[in-house]
Amino acid sequence: MLRLYCGTGRMPVIQITLLKGRTLEQKRKVAARVTDALVEEAGANRAAVTVTFVEVTKEEYASGGVLLADKQ
Amino acid sequence: MLRLYCGTGRMPVIQITLLKGRTLEQKRKVAARVTDALVEEAGANRAAVTVTFVEVTKEEYASGGVLLADKQ
Amino acid sequence: MLRLYCGTGRMPVIQITLLKGRTLEQKRKVAARVTDALVEEAGANRAAVTVTFVEVTKEEYASGGVLLADKQ
Amino acid sequence: MLRLYCGTGRMPVIQITLLKGRTLEQKRKVAARVTDALVEEAGANRAAVTVTFVEVTKEEYASGGVLLADKQ
Amino acid sequence: MLRLYCGTGRMPVIQITLLKGRTLEQKRKVAARVTDALVEEAGANRAAVTVTFVEVTKEEYASGGVLLADKQ
Amino acid sequence: MLRLYCGTGRMPVIQITLLKGRTLEQKRKVAARVTDALVEEAGANRAAVTVTFVEVTKEEYASGGVLLADKQ
Repeated sequence: MLRLYCGTGRMPVIQITLLKGRTLEQKRKVAARVTDALVEEAGANRAAVTVTFVEVTKEEYASGGVLLADKQ
Repeated sequence: MLRLYCGTGRMPVIQITLLKGRTLEQKRKVAARVTDALVEEAGANRAAVTVTFVEVTKEEYASGGVLLADKQ
Repeated sequence: MLRLYCGTGRMPVIQITLLKGRTLEQKRKVAARVTDALVEEAGANRAAVTVTFVEVTKEEYASGGVLLADKQ
Repeated sequence: MLRLYCGTGRMPVIQITLLKGRTLEQKRKVAARVTDALVEEAGANRAAVTVTFVEVTKEEYASGGVLLADKQ
Repeated sequence: MLRLYCGTGRMPVIQITLLKGRTLEQKRKVAARVTDALVEEAGANRAAVTVTFVEVTKEEYASGGVLLADKQ
Repeated sequence: MLRLYCGTGRMPVIQITLLKGRTLEQKRKVAARVTDALVEEAGANRAAVTVTFVEVTKEEYASGGVLLADKQ
């Protein structure tokens, strides 16, 4: 019954790819607000919202064809 | 120069996997609030935040080992 | 409390990218067995396992540098 | 010719996001069983099934809007 | 044995999320060149490079917090 | 105005999952060439192309159901 409840909700999965270096507090707040947005705007079941952070280094991230490690 | 500016920002990429059926208005609001969260809580450059929605059907989404199409 | 229970489990998220054309029954069985594997081998909480299928066409999938649409 | 054979198979790609801390043996078994499921239930070419694990810490994973690091 | 050969290569998986509307010819060339890049610059085994396109609509893609559908 | 310009481009996001161990120089070249491919073949706005590398160990990568760590 518990499981059924948990499992039947609508279940957004949010993957956030960002640069390493955010604090625990920053991730805490991002996770909370992103979840709020899905719950309040898209009718998601709060318990079922999953957020994962994929943290990359400046050597693992490029924009405009240039690694961040090579900028400035 | 313009490009340089755009390209050097920190660049979170957010992929949101959710059930099909949200309205344009719902996605509009989710995108805006998720972006706000990254800008305000994690110091992201607003112009550089990218949000994509991967919309799946009930046949493409399972929790607890059961497709949503098979629930209820 | 219910939510707490749901939310505290370990939560694998499994994204399966595959060619379009599998039947509902095939996806049903894949979702069930993949979930079983995570529960039985990695100690995952069954209710918290999420599986999503990203179904691509032969024009959206390449191996060895060649789209499937261009093979045979 | 060999390459052609390899390249023409159906090619599921499975990305498993889960908490850090599983042993090599656990990942070994999960990879094997997930692959079996795709081969046996969805007609995938075994050689062409790719499984990747994205291992996240408790600070990189939230459910219900709360980081796992903040639970308990 | 053949399979063993295929399976032992290094295996980059490339997921390209982009707006719907590219032609088959465009995707063909992107897949070929991206694969070449991985083979020639990073020592990947050609047969083992997998490219998938996730094509999104203007309603499924936002930058700067605004859906493309809402931009001019 | 700057933002508008940046934000209105078509925005491919490329996620490359590959084995750890490539040098900075290899990633630099892959990012540049992959971006070139999207710009030249698919009409992408260079400044808006984002490439991320997800680097996995041999214990986090399996093909044919076998972890790379278990091969050879």
